[in-house]
Amino acid sequence: MNAEILAVGTELLLGDIVNTNAQYIARRLADIGVNVYYQSVVGDNESRLYKSFELALERADIVITTGGLGPTNDDLTKETATAIAGKPLVLDQKSLEWIESYFSKLGRKMTENNRKQAYFPEGSVIFHNEYGTAPGCAIEVGKKKIILLPGPPREMKPMFENSVIPYLTQFQDGVLVSKVLRICGLGESQVVDMLKDIIDAQTNPTIAPYAKTGEVTLRITSKAKTRDEASKKIFPVEEKIRNILGNHIYGEGEDTTLESVVAEMLIRHNKTIAVAESCTGGLLAARLVNYPGISSVFMEGAVTYSNASKIRQLSVKEETLSKYGAVSKETAEEMAKGICQSAGTDIGISTTGIAGPGGGSAEKPVGLVYSGVCIDGEVFSKKFSFTGDRQNIRERTVISVLDWVRRILSEKYI
Amino acid sequence: MNAEILAVGTELLLGDIVNTNAQYIARRLADIGVNVYYQSVVGDNESRLYKSFELALERADIVITTGGLGPTNDDLTKETATAIAGKPLVLDQKSLEWIESYFSKLGRKMTENNRKQAYFPEGSVIFHNEYGTAPGCAIEVGKKKIILLPGPPREMKPMFENSVIPYLTQFQDGVLVSKVLRICGLGESQVVDMLKDIIDAQTNPTIAPYAKTGEVTLRITSKAKTRDEASKKIFPVEEKIRNILGNHIYGEGEDTTLESVVAEMLIRHNKTIAVAESCTGGLLAARLVNYPGISSVFMEGAVTYSNASKIRQLSVKEETLSKYGAVSKETAEEMAKGICQSAGTDIGISTTGIAGPGGGSAEKPVGLVYSGVCIDGEVFSKKFSFTGDRQNIRERTVISVLDWVRRILSEKYI
Repeated sequence: MNAEILAVGTELLLGDIVNTNAQYIARRLADIGVNVYYQSVVGDNESRLYKSFELALERADIVITTGGLGPTNDDLTKETATAIAGKPLVLDQKSLEWIESYFSKLGRKMTENNRKQAYFPEGSVIFHNEYGTAPGCAIEVGKKKIILLPGPPREMKPMFENSVIPYLTQFQDGVLVSKVLRICGLGESQVVDMLKDIIDAQTNPTIAPYAKTGEVTLRITSKAKTRDEASKKIFPVEEKIRNILGNHIYGEGEDTTLESVVAEMLIRHNKTIAVAESCTGGLLAARLVNYPGISSVFMEGAVTYSNASKIRQLSVKEETLSKYGAVSKETAEEMAKGICQSAGTDIGISTTGIAGPGGGSAEKPVGLVYSGVCIDGEVFSKKFSFTGDRQNIRERTVISVLDWVRRILSEKYI
Repeated sequence: MNAEILAVGTELLLGDIVNTNAQYIARRLADIGVNVYYQSVVGDNESRLYKSFELALERADIVITTGGLGPTNDDLTKETATAIAGKPLVLDQKSLEWIESYFSKLGRKMTENNRKQAYFPEGSVIFHNEYGTAPGCAIEVGKKKIILLPGPPREMKPMFENSVIPYLTQFQDGVLVSKVLRICGLGESQVVDMLKDIIDAQTNPTIAPYAKTGEVTLRITSKAKTRDEASKKIFPVEEKIRNILGNHIYGEGEDTTLESVVAEMLIRHNKTIAVAESCTGGLLAARLVNYPGISSVFMEGAVTYSNASKIRQLSVKEETLSKYGAVSKETAEEMAKGICQSAGTDIGISTTGIAGPGGGSAEKPVGLVYSGVCIDGEVFSKKFSFTGDRQNIRERTVISVLDWVRRILSEKYI
């Protein structure tokens, strides 16, 4: 069974709003094993909308639309779908009563054009709208189906969960289960290279890599008759991947992040941390503070952007700064040690680098970053080279440093 | 001239990511007067991609794709467009050198599959990718054009601004000039309400409002035969808008940000600043450090997440913390004063609040934030209430505090 998502609305074509509905529906369809091969957006234009319906019905078993169910004249989705289906519009009394009660609750009078929202093509399955005046519906067109949903996400999503998912699952055989692995320290093409044989050999489960800033995500998806069976198919493939990628895999699951992995290790081993930042200017601390439970281990952060503050707050030696420069292995190490001591923590991390656009030289180009880690008295440092603009260099610094710290922690505390 | 946006990527069909590229491109095309009648999404599948190209070329003068320019075998957009255009792929030496240098800067070896990113259909106009290894290009297909852009927004957007807009405007008659006004402290609907008469009355220039987290942007766009003429049309409309919105307009232009406005005021008046953060955990410092020239005025930041660090680093009184709590007007004021004194700066800013998800109470709910400003010895504080999740509350805090500081600075130092 495959579906196509058709979003209707000139505001989407003008870029006034982002089509988050398509993502939501696509993800939920993937969850229940309905394939989506196309998504489209069309404006509030009758002839283009008609053509879009024709095309979608040619390509897919189910066409799911969002938007264009409102009361005004430029809301054309239902009328156009009705024309495609070749069925008459029929009043649904229950929907009319709902719409009337909706207005009376708001203390407003229902306008005459809201009546049209209670009409549906004959034989439709009607989906109640808990949060608005536009009910949705499913219309049979031969062996295919058109599902009409309202545009506002807060109306569409509950309708999708409460009505559309149950409606669709009655036609299904098989279940999809997917698992996400999160990778840091390798580029997407490296990951694909390393997993080439596994990826090429697989059809069920499938393995899909996605890249985002500084990270790669692998989604392993399997299909089977039951959830349990599908889950079992994932396991051996996951094991093979883990054997190859090893510690580059930092976690699994939709909500796992580098900072959550680091924070959970710190909490598990009851180790406190403090950070001293120069080029990242607070981003590293902010990233750790993303994690809601961080307060039990994260003591403080120091944004020591000036040399004076590196000396005063972190006891970096003037001599070190003048001999090696602020962006150096030596300064990074003293910063890490300094924040450890002043904050009284088990672990201190530092960053110092040239984020640009100015400040670079042949010897120390823009993108050069040093990080220091002081852990239980031992001090390490690492040199990084990044490309990109100022923001990008700073973001990549945070990710790379967090990943490095994660690796140190997992070696030290396992 | 009309265009169609075709996003390529199975991750979009699976709902793993939102198609923000389509919105960005749609909005920018609307700005320069190019109509968009359809947007589509298709997966990394050769035959469906081919059909999508055929269909789009039938419906539009220009087909703009995003995604599928990567080095791996499932990146098929360029290959498919090349087949559609019926042209051979030719190596672009300059692009190859760029890709090689990109990898060598990262300290990684270019893998063989990255070479394919330097090949383009013969006769293409090639668009440099400042932030990645996938250059874009424009291919002529008869009288129509295909424009291929990379998928990652941080690569696509600069390429769109620097290469695609100039490429497209050469085919337009008349010149478009636009000016961006940046607004903080008002919601989008408030702005639209206040400017209703002006917006309704205008056709050339047009006035388009866009909302992003905590800010509103107004783009005034005029069309005329010459740049000069178009610019002149903008002036009287801009003046009317400025009269109505006043100091809510914090700046103008694409690259202006709240932090750049604040930073430039500080630099102009030679005032140094330091920040003390609790709930924002480094985000406020990081936002100021976004501004490349900040080092002459930004001395240091303290992320005092624990009460102990508030006392030790900022000399907040224990009594204040126990009597009023860490999230209070009193603590915010002492934090601002404390950072001013310890860093020896003219200005100190503080944030303390409940970002959630836990930690709220009836009296002090999640979203309650206090900020303090100490400026030339005077201390102010302000209470904010935000809704949203942890990240959202922290981001809004940073924006609102920066906007508040901007208003204080502009009153004090004009």
